[in-house]
Amino acid sequence: MPLTPPRRALSSDNWAGVHPEVFAAMAAVNDGHVPSYGKDSYTESVVSTLRDKLGAEQVFLVFTGTGANVLGLDSVAFSHNAVICASTAHIFTSECGAAEKHIGCKLLPIATSNGKITPAGIATHLHHIGNEHHAQPSAVSISQATEYGTVYSVDEVQVIAGFAHDHGLYLHMDGARLANAAAHLGEPLVRMARGAGVDVLSFGATKNGALAAEAVVFFNDALAKAFEYRRMQGMQLSSKMRFVAAQFDALLTDDLWLKSASHANRMAARLGEELAAIPGLRLTQKVEANEVFVILPREHVARLQERCSFQVWTEEITEARLVTSFDTTDADVTAFVASVREAVGS
Amino acid sequence: MPLTPPRRALSSDNWAGVHPEVFAAMAAVNDGHVPSYGKDSYTESVVSTLRDKLGAEQVFLVFTGTGANVLGLDSVAFSHNAVICASTAHIFTSECGAAEKHIGCKLLPIATSNGKITPAGIATHLHHIGNEHHAQPSAVSISQATEYGTVYSVDEVQVIAGFAHDHGLYLHMDGARLANAAAHLGEPLVRMARGAGVDVLSFGATKNGALAAEAVVFFNDALAKAFEYRRMQGMQLSSKMRFVAAQFDALLTDDLWLKSASHANRMAARLGEELAAIPGLRLTQKVEANEVFVILPREHVARLQERCSFQVWTEEITEARLVTSFDTTDADVTAFVASVREAVGS
Amino acid sequence: MPLTPPRRALSSDNWAGVHPEVFAAMAAVNDGHVPSYGKDSYTESVVSTLRDKLGAEQVFLVFTGTGANVLGLDSVAFSHNAVICASTAHIFTSECGAAEKHIGCKLLPIATSNGKITPAGIATHLHHIGNEHHAQPSAVSISQATEYGTVYSVDEVQVIAGFAHDHGLYLHMDGARLANAAAHLGEPLVRMARGAGVDVLSFGATKNGALAAEAVVFFNDALAKAFEYRRMQGMQLSSKMRFVAAQFDALLTDDLWLKSASHANRMAARLGEELAAIPGLRLTQKVEANEVFVILPREHVARLQERCSFQVWTEEITEARLVTSFDTTDADVTAFVASVREAVGS
Amino acid sequence: MPLTPPRRALSSDNWAGVHPEVFAAMAAVNDGHVPSYGKDSYTESVVSTLRDKLGAEQVFLVFTGTGANVLGLDSVAFSHNAVICASTAHIFTSECGAAEKHIGCKLLPIATSNGKITPAGIATHLHHIGNEHHAQPSAVSISQATEYGTVYSVDEVQVIAGFAHDHGLYLHMDGARLANAAAHLGEPLVRMARGAGVDVLSFGATKNGALAAEAVVFFNDALAKAFEYRRMQGMQLSSKMRFVAAQFDALLTDDLWLKSASHANRMAARLGEELAAIPGLRLTQKVEANEVFVILPREHVARLQERCSFQVWTEEITEARLVTSFDTTDADVTAFVASVREAVGS
Repeated sequence: MPLTPPRRALSSDNWAGVHPEVFAAMAAVNDGHVPSYGKDSYTESVVSTLRDKLGAEQVFLVFTGTGANVLGLDSVAFSHNAVICASTAHIFTSECGAAEKHIGCKLLPIATSNGKITPAGIATHLHHIGNEHHAQPSAVSISQATEYGTVYSVDEVQVIAGFAHDHGLYLHMDGARLANAAAHLGEPLVRMARGAGVDVLSFGATKNGALAAEAVVFFNDALAKAFEYRRMQGMQLSSKMRFVAAQFDALLTDDLWLKSASHANRMAARLGEELAAIPGLRLTQKVEANEVFVILPREHVARLQERCSFQVWTEEITEARLVTSFDTTDADVTAFVASVREAVGS
Repeated sequence: MPLTPPRRALSSDNWAGVHPEVFAAMAAVNDGHVPSYGKDSYTESVVSTLRDKLGAEQVFLVFTGTGANVLGLDSVAFSHNAVICASTAHIFTSECGAAEKHIGCKLLPIATSNGKITPAGIATHLHHIGNEHHAQPSAVSISQATEYGTVYSVDEVQVIAGFAHDHGLYLHMDGARLANAAAHLGEPLVRMARGAGVDVLSFGATKNGALAAEAVVFFNDALAKAFEYRRMQGMQLSSKMRFVAAQFDALLTDDLWLKSASHANRMAARLGEELAAIPGLRLTQKVEANEVFVILPREHVARLQERCSFQVWTEEITEARLVTSFDTTDADVTAFVASVREAVGS
Repeated sequence: MPLTPPRRALSSDNWAGVHPEVFAAMAAVNDGHVPSYGKDSYTESVVSTLRDKLGAEQVFLVFTGTGANVLGLDSVAFSHNAVICASTAHIFTSECGAAEKHIGCKLLPIATSNGKITPAGIATHLHHIGNEHHAQPSAVSISQATEYGTVYSVDEVQVIAGFAHDHGLYLHMDGARLANAAAHLGEPLVRMARGAGVDVLSFGATKNGALAAEAVVFFNDALAKAFEYRRMQGMQLSSKMRFVAAQFDALLTDDLWLKSASHANRMAARLGEELAAIPGLRLTQKVEANEVFVILPREHVARLQERCSFQVWTEEITEARLVTSFDTTDADVTAFVASVREAVGS
Repeated sequence: MPLTPPRRALSSDNWAGVHPEVFAAMAAVNDGHVPSYGKDSYTESVVSTLRDKLGAEQVFLVFTGTGANVLGLDSVAFSHNAVICASTAHIFTSECGAAEKHIGCKLLPIATSNGKITPAGIATHLHHIGNEHHAQPSAVSISQATEYGTVYSVDEVQVIAGFAHDHGLYLHMDGARLANAAAHLGEPLVRMARGAGVDVLSFGATKNGALAAEAVVFFNDALAKAFEYRRMQGMQLSSKMRFVAAQFDALLTDDLWLKSASHANRMAARLGEELAAIPGLRLTQKVEANEVFVILPREHVARLQERCSFQVWTEEITEARLVTSFDTTDADVTAFVASVREAVGS
């Protein structure tokens, strides 16, 4: 059965398919019998490579970003704890309350205009420490890149990590788009999380060109205790794990992760620049990773979406979110910009 | 990086890889952009086909068998309820307490010698109905095929379903190996669950040759209420769903599911027969699906495992579990039987 | 062992003891053997009286306000749901995340300056309805009286109830201080919740002079389904229930609940008036129930607390919370006002 | 409103009321204002006394036995763990799945004829250690006295504790009837739990003559970490705590706990002896604490229950459970024995 259009979109990086090299890596391991549930030597080797590249103590592969976030946070929060995050955080807004359900904890949001939080924001939730009537903050979670496509510098993360640790809080990083952030900053992976003081990282591959592959990465060995049981109980343990491992293997080979993320970022940058140049259009966020946020004239939105699907992020102001991916082409950008120019008569 | 041996095994059907036609189907949909999270027309079409073939009201795709079981049971049990199952049930013994954690309910086991339960066994847990101090049974769960490779006839399931419904209980079926059961019985899929009175089915594709694909299947529309939220919150929603759908598509095309399961069953049958013919060896279960349980001489187990990996199911009596899969070959069976014969000097 | 000072306080209505008539009622039922867990005829009779006075479908007795709130909300929210409430709500700020832990749901706060919410505030959380990535609002919860001692009129609650119901949301009322609100409004109990459109009420007795007695009150029979199991599983079922019932019996006899609440309100009103008359002092909230919020000069707070304990509610502005109870005396008020006058040199 | 009959019963020790001295102690602290939630000096003093008498590291007061058990077990089990207990354990059979709901863990029952378990029974659940598919045992829970009225000697508990600790398991004791067990053994409280190697104890006062008072007692300081938050979140924190403390104060004063338990035990012993002497009657358990289990002729049960209520424990064999309490009188025993003699024509 053939797939039906729309065939090109800027809706999300998970509207893209799987990078051909990732597919090839999966095919390459599809031979014979190997231990299930990640006990095979291939998975062990990929995990070891991940550990090296990230400077991590322990790495566990899972299926989804929500799975990685929930299980990662579960290692830094008991049910009586609270996790402090941006009000725009995926864990707060877009995971259907998975953290609350699975961990039983509270999430305490910080209002933010660009998706980034600061120690001052964290501090607003540090009341009532030691008072049994109030959920006790145990961790901070930041998204890198943020849900607004902005990126923390390593310095900024270090400042947050320092503040968190000074206040007895762990730092979790939702790195669903860590590759895009690293590509933007030009920093090696080891600097992005370990070097920045992160304790637990959700390292995403899916949005970077994988099929369904994420990793929970611990930079603090003690936090990983009993994680293998929590992953199984949390329904995130793949029986045919070699195929999850293969996805990471492909992305880590010859820096495919970086090439793909850099490409997506470049497409977003070009898209942002060309849209910003159209009279009457306004970008609402800096374009740093692979997302462009732009206010479009309300009357043109529906027709533009028909030509190339995208999401209206803030309905009230018809702020659109445009997401590029490893397979976004220059032609896609050109076509979309042309559509907008045509629509607004520019 | 190459995979290392062991290359042939009888350890589990998830030591096998992915059926080539399943791989091809995934590759065939890896083009262009489509809506994520299963909103694409391809997934909708595959779900519709599944609904037709199973006679189901609603079908939802997930990643893992434990995910399917937990989310399926979550639709028939509140936290104050209990689910009655065989003491050998995967949900009871092998999912690290996922049902208890996720649903908060109790699981009430029935002792069984062959993995199958009966109304008489269920009845032993129907005390204290209406007494607030006791978790109230709300569902029965059976595995088809069972964890012992045995298969309920459709009649047997109907009797259980009738008894369950008469007592206000729903019937859940863990169909991780439903294909093997259907192949053994020669029954169409629609008879296996809907025709047998099942309310909720976990329909497994992974052990049948898929990569990671299972379905939660509802034959009672009311039970599916809000399931899409529970799947998301339960971390079982795939962003690039078309690839999960493709796995089912391949298996449903030209009855690949049935051919694969029939082949696996045939290999198990031959294995069982030839082992049973070896003096001193004893099968402990009827070989109906794709599993053989046989008591091996303790002193030979380690060496046999070196040649061809398998699991010792019951350590005390060195009962081995041998599992065949879609890719088990006649040569595999011949080699294993020869190893055993050589070992026992027969 | 004697109790040590402080003997008089304005810290909270749960710093008070038990009303003598409540004690007498408990003593009066302390004779002989009766069925446990509320199956005694005395409890049944008190529950029946509560049902009549409140116009309720079903009433269940529990120990604590948090227990009543959590179990009440559990009947109007699944784990994938969200409950909308004031950012000042006890369920949001002061129950250590009990709702998140027990129900697994999200709480969505509305900023408020006086503890009261409006349909406009509720509407800000009604995005993403039907989108599986977002916890779905299923209920609104309001506190009556609020945590700021303010009171919704019956009309105001009706407007909220109407808006909630129009949007498919249930209305829960945290009535830990419902008696004080009813006393302020001069409304009968039946008007306060049922008449105002509430679906589930936590009806508090403890702050009204009981020892430990609250009720979960259902005005919608369907919501009470299986509540007896949830209460037991929720650890809120008293084995010697007659003594919980006796507390309600005493408060309902000769309107003791109303006399006690009216007295506490009067003390708060006098306290508020006299403090407001002191030059330089400012009340931050209307005094409607039994609480006074006043900004005190920071330099005098510690010494004033030594004389008569109270809580600083907002540290940054030294906003004090003064709570009166059934046993607050005119002398208490006089003494506290005198202390403040002396401190500020007025 | 007067209480209605039945006035005398052998149904359960929670059909009794409150010991007069317990009531007096509550009345004695009902004066003036004290800090809520147990921050008053009186509660601190009672907790200190409890700590001394039990040799405990930390003690926390709660409302109910189920609350104490669940919160105690929560300190020795994560959701991926299992707690091993007797199949007759209150936590397994009679708490409506509260442990599974609150902790998310599994309970693994051991069949027992007298309510007592042994290392051999525990060992049957120590399979699959380190295998992520199986809930990992982390604790053993025993009831002292058991639900069958039998009592472990201190030696027997020490053996269990030693075995548990040797296998990395904590030992929890459900001491809802610890007083009766101590009275039977003639052992001081300090020997019953600390001296026997228990890590966490649920110490019950309610069945011993209190209104609603239990304690979670830690003999291992590390296990008590953050317990105050878990108690609050677990809805077991009393706002007017002084009255819970007073109940323990009364029972600990002049060994009222021991006198009451000894009396109840004596009544049970006499009841057991006299029933055993009736031709045709058979006791099914040794009478050690305050319970008698006796098989009664089915045809007489209903009429006997009318005269003096009791519970049929095992319907199939009309095994009755007769429970005595601090206020059971010799006349009660005489009357019941006479009723039975009359019924059976002896």
